[in-house]
Amino acid sequence: MYAAGDVRIENIPDAGLRDPTDALIRVARACICGSDLWPYNLKKPGGSPQRMGHEAIGIVEAVGSEVSTLKVGNVVVMPFACSDGTCTFCHEGLNTACVHVGFFGNGDELDGAQAEALRIPYADGTLFALPAGADDTLMPSLLTLADVMGTGHHAAIVSGAGPGRIAAVIGDGAVGLCGVIAAKRLGSEQIIILGRHDDRIALARKFGATDVVSERGDAAVARVMEVTGGFGAHSVLECVGTEQAMATAVGIARPGGAIGRVGVPHYQAIPGSLPAFFKNVFVGGGPAPVRAYIADLLPDVLEGRIEPGLVFDREVGLEGVPDGYRAMHDRESIKVMVKP
Amino acid sequence: MYAAGDVRIENIPDAGLRDPTDALIRVARACICGSDLWPYNLKKPGGSPQRMGHEAIGIVEAVGSEVSTLKVGNVVVMPFACSDGTCTFCHEGLNTACVHVGFFGNGDELDGAQAEALRIPYADGTLFALPAGADDTLMPSLLTLADVMGTGHHAAIVSGAGPGRIAAVIGDGAVGLCGVIAAKRLGSEQIIILGRHDDRIALARKFGATDVVSERGDAAVARVMEVTGGFGAHSVLECVGTEQAMATAVGIARPGGAIGRVGVPHYQAIPGSLPAFFKNVFVGGGPAPVRAYIADLLPDVLEGRIEPGLVFDREVGLEGVPDGYRAMHDRESIKVMVKP
Repeated sequence: MYAAGDVRIENIPDAGLRDPTDALIRVARACICGSDLWPYNLKKPGGSPQRMGHEAIGIVEAVGSEVSTLKVGNVVVMPFACSDGTCTFCHEGLNTACVHVGFFGNGDELDGAQAEALRIPYADGTLFALPAGADDTLMPSLLTLADVMGTGHHAAIVSGAGPGRIAAVIGDGAVGLCGVIAAKRLGSEQIIILGRHDDRIALARKFGATDVVSERGDAAVARVMEVTGGFGAHSVLECVGTEQAMATAVGIARPGGAIGRVGVPHYQAIPGSLPAFFKNVFVGGGPAPVRAYIADLLPDVLEGRIEPGLVFDREVGLEGVPDGYRAMHDRESIKVMVKP
Repeated sequence: MYAAGDVRIENIPDAGLRDPTDALIRVARACICGSDLWPYNLKKPGGSPQRMGHEAIGIVEAVGSEVSTLKVGNVVVMPFACSDGTCTFCHEGLNTACVHVGFFGNGDELDGAQAEALRIPYADGTLFALPAGADDTLMPSLLTLADVMGTGHHAAIVSGAGPGRIAAVIGDGAVGLCGVIAAKRLGSEQIIILGRHDDRIALARKFGATDVVSERGDAAVARVMEVTGGFGAHSVLECVGTEQAMATAVGIARPGGAIGRVGVPHYQAIPGSLPAFFKNVFVGGGPAPVRAYIADLLPDVLEGRIEPGLVFDREVGLEGVPDGYRAMHDRESIKVMVKP
């Protein structure tokens, strides 16, 4: 990614092992994330180009001398962040606060997954080896465990989604759609999706959304109040990251409710300090510890109880990645899978 | 309260019953709250004068025809808000979100408790009758159940204070001091108080604070990191309400930690959106449902296990209230008790 709108496929030196805790993976599937659209819209020209991609299913090609749980040939989920698996935060299940955390494909040191192969630091802690022989048709859903399904699940967990608690999901992108899956999976009976794209709303309904609110701002708040008996939603999954989305989240939260924000926030201060206070609303969330969630979510994927892979509606090779960005940006596609 | 710095004691028409669910109480003890200092500092001249006071121990003098649980002569705690005790929020223990909530002494319809007597709406739901014969020496501690002890407890509950979780209390006013009591009572072993008044810090230590941080801003954050092994506090009790205090709260919160804010926020947006997000820090809190907490806290007061009444360091009659405001404003007094 050279700048907003300027994505190029280039040959770079082959990835390889560097540290004894590294693994090298060949990318079997990768994808383009809604969060990749932020630099696609905003990155200024003239800076260093950024290697993109932070979600993958890979095949282990080589491991360092200190890697103990992975073998060459393992099929693995690569979460969007690396984590050592041993520090106090990893033990608490908050791998994205690992003392050795690093984020793939964000322009810093780590490589990107929209590529043929990449180096994985702290491979034992970072990668999750899949059981042998997983059906190829499950690949799209397994790939979502690298980010969007785990991230939607995080929003649902943080916002306390569950039986007897009305859930509202702000945003009909892939994360929001996975948030619907997660809220339903955790037992929410009423799930409101706030969005306005027909194809996405149809998928949200398939995933379990019971109400659709396509208004924005104050009108959206009023509409949510109507469908919740006047009090709002107990669990608000904020899956966008804009200031307006967050203000809406505070507006539709029921007193005593909670907001799980997982859209990377593009605002310096959280709006709605006073209404959030007077309603005793919790605001939580952040980068999802997807590595910690895989063990919990995987059985439901393997046994077909959830099908988050349906968020992929386009598949491209590496050469198709630039057009994939355009298609997601233009809302032609919900989420693009990359098969290098 | 006519305006900032202008507090007067005046004769007004006697309080009486209005609705069948009302009670009339004679005030045995009231007090001045840190939150009363906001209008004492900021109220513009020329508006309607505000009847002040929202914390009291009272004696029931009369009850309306629909009051069923209270009798004339009962000694009661009057929480800072009225609540009907029957709505969905009261049943959930969030009385301050009651569909009939009202706040005493805030300039709206309800009377203030810095007075001889006042009308209490929804008396069954609002008032908490104390067991007969409570020792007079317990009155100060019982009085704190009307607000500051319950509010400090709320900050501790919302921030998840408990065994194995380091607590940090921002603010050494009466609420912060009660927050120390609450954190210790819930099992926190390390409790950091952020404050800089010798008398208050001494009391904080007596209540269980193990560390004192008297720096401000970035220096305070650095110091908390030092005394917490570099990661910060799991539970941050924000008992001030300024933007700077909230920014400090975000700064000192450990990844995965929680902030309970109970100082009435005097800022429009919550600072630190990005650090709170990247650390997955929860921000919660609001007006404490002190009515719901009394049953839990009362036995510890009656049996002397906690002694929050020590926050009172001055007692005045009604005529001494204006000087009481001045003394609290000048930090001559932590909290002033009023005995009409």
